[in-house]
Amino acid sequence: MSATAEPIRLGVLGLGRAFTLMLPTFLGDPRVRLVAAYDPHPGARAAFETTFGGVALGDEQSVCDHPDVEWVYLATPHQMHARHVQLAAERGKHVLVEKPMALSMADADTMVEVCARAGTRLIVGHSHSFNAPVLLAHELIASGRYGAVRMVHALQYTDFLYRPRRPEELDTARGGGVVFSQAAHQVDIVRLLAGGETRTVRALMGRWDASRPTEGAYSALLQFANGAFASISYNGYGFYDSDTQMDGVGEMGTAKARDAHQATRARLAAATSEAAEVDLKAARNFGGTAFTMPTLRGPDAAQHFGPVIVSCDLADLRLTPTGVEVVSQAGIEFVPIKLPEVPRAEVIDELWRVARDGALPAHGGEWSRATLEVCLAMLKSEASGTDIPLERQVAAPS
Amino acid sequence: MSATAEPIRLGVLGLGRAFTLMLPTFLGDPRVRLVAAYDPHPGARAAFETTFGGVALGDEQSVCDHPDVEWVYLATPHQMHARHVQLAAERGKHVLVEKPMALSMADADTMVEVCARAGTRLIVGHSHSFNAPVLLAHELIASGRYGAVRMVHALQYTDFLYRPRRPEELDTARGGGVVFSQAAHQVDIVRLLAGGETRTVRALMGRWDASRPTEGAYSALLQFANGAFASISYNGYGFYDSDTQMDGVGEMGTAKARDAHQATRARLAAATSEAAEVDLKAARNFGGTAFTMPTLRGPDAAQHFGPVIVSCDLADLRLTPTGVEVVSQAGIEFVPIKLPEVPRAEVIDELWRVARDGALPAHGGEWSRATLEVCLAMLKSEASGTDIPLERQVAAPS
Repeated sequence: MSATAEPIRLGVLGLGRAFTLMLPTFLGDPRVRLVAAYDPHPGARAAFETTFGGVALGDEQSVCDHPDVEWVYLATPHQMHARHVQLAAERGKHVLVEKPMALSMADADTMVEVCARAGTRLIVGHSHSFNAPVLLAHELIASGRYGAVRMVHALQYTDFLYRPRRPEELDTARGGGVVFSQAAHQVDIVRLLAGGETRTVRALMGRWDASRPTEGAYSALLQFANGAFASISYNGYGFYDSDTQMDGVGEMGTAKARDAHQATRARLAAATSEAAEVDLKAARNFGGTAFTMPTLRGPDAAQHFGPVIVSCDLADLRLTPTGVEVVSQAGIEFVPIKLPEVPRAEVIDELWRVARDGALPAHGGEWSRATLEVCLAMLKSEASGTDIPLERQVAAPS
Repeated sequence: MSATAEPIRLGVLGLGRAFTLMLPTFLGDPRVRLVAAYDPHPGARAAFETTFGGVALGDEQSVCDHPDVEWVYLATPHQMHARHVQLAAERGKHVLVEKPMALSMADADTMVEVCARAGTRLIVGHSHSFNAPVLLAHELIASGRYGAVRMVHALQYTDFLYRPRRPEELDTARGGGVVFSQAAHQVDIVRLLAGGETRTVRALMGRWDASRPTEGAYSALLQFANGAFASISYNGYGFYDSDTQMDGVGEMGTAKARDAHQATRARLAAATSEAAEVDLKAARNFGGTAFTMPTLRGPDAAQHFGPVIVSCDLADLRLTPTGVEVVSQAGIEFVPIKLPEVPRAEVIDELWRVARDGALPAHGGEWSRATLEVCLAMLKSEASGTDIPLERQVAAPS
């Protein structure tokens, strides 16, 4: 933080799961200050005032109207993003909006357009493409020293489908399932590493549990304008845990129990109704009955999104939670990341560069709309049984 | 071996690389006896007589004619397989033929037809779908206790393209490249575990080294008749070694140096002409100037073909070089294989069941033709940019 610059004053819309996952960042990073918030849950609003000393307001508009708010951090359900970005932009407020950016290209277009019209900035994140090892790999590739990127392989086996869910999270039409929620990460990472401009997508989907009737798994092939291709696979029904390939470090950058996926299923099995499941989810969120404040300490490892290998002409780069393993003819070299001082500090790094240093976002509206286009194309490809050509792609930032 | 049954008397066509890789099996397994052989290299013929006490003959036909030969083990270059199977079948000899079975469906048809007409048996192998952990996983799936197979993921990063090659091995039209040579393994494994009946294939290929102008990498998606899908990826330009995910055990079932891929490239760099490269390859083969007889001891681990995960309704099965890790709601259970007494004893197990016990081959002509169909479809898919439907598939043996 430059000595003269003030912390960025955030207004928050939505104090649910996404906000809860950003808590360690907001609590620990002095570059942001949370000044106002709205959420329909009174418990969350009360907790916000207690925790941050900000003001909890009565609706979304009041947060966007609040004179102290510079940027709106938008963590409302996916389908509300477009409306809320518009609300903020029309009041001259910049927006940091959670992934997935939106559920339709029309909504993504609206978000880009209202911000352009208002002259406000839009950053989409957190997503795992902000993770320090991904940024380091991107930097190593951009250095040119390993030649062209040829092939990317990404894999993730999680307990995603058995975490407590609201009904809409199990309904693809309302933004549920692993494509909107998880491919949004994996595609963003792979696009960043493979140049960004996806040309075609072919995807297959798994919907294997009739009681949770949305996509829980996929495998897909992506072709890029530069000739590279990627294979991405995700299994959210995972008994197997691909974090075992990531030094036993979980998605959130902390050590993970070997039986974490089994424990997730056991907890869910104890919730005997849809309402009980919704309560289970709400309880763990900020201000909920089972919520515990995160301990504030620097992370031991970066957050990550499973095994990723990038093959270049002169080296294979394997992402780990603490750096990038570069395997070349010279042997194996480990390039460590600088550990972020708080989890997801990388998001605030980008926010700061944009808000205080006048930089353009790396994870801006056009970039993120292109990731959404790929995700939507995955669903279309599965339905049509064909490759889907892409038309709204943009190159990775350099 | 049943006490009364005689060893199976093999005649060998081709004493090159494939034969060299079968040497530990032939030397160590008392169920086979090598009685005759032909190879164009005099050094290999001489070594055959010295090593096995069999007779080296002047051409392929003489081996097939030899009255002591019951089965012909065919390890000639891929494009000769059809002709040589015909030679053997017309003389009433059964055939064990190396993968890939052939380079065209027409040749595969010929092989199936001539054997059917002659009433002789055809087994295609060795391939890595014979490996004990693959067979164990197949058995665990067939038991039904884990429910339906939903998704298979297979991955392999090797130094394939930088091993010493004859010119035709770098020419796809003559059977070169990783699709014919390596997808033949991976597809056979995945088909066996996912039910066998592939419905469609979509594949992308990498041809990244102009000095070795054939496919060196691929990623593909396979859909199966039972609704399962598979994602398979192979990178034969690998600096990274996916055997690091297999307890550091290499494809041949023995411990592998971390810098094995780097050493392969260094050796090749020292061969400064095509002729020098051919010599380098020939030298390491049976009877060659740099050939060393394999030490005869039981393997510490099974041979394998890289990381494979099979997701069923009730468990994920992860293949390892010593067994199958079954991850279910009950936790992680490791089911060990019974280690084969000699490397690739599993091939002789099947050969024995067919030759002495009257069983039908699991890796027979129709089965293996279906694997070839998938491999050919991978090349077609890359060329056409579309899914390729498959029509000659057969179910996995139960």
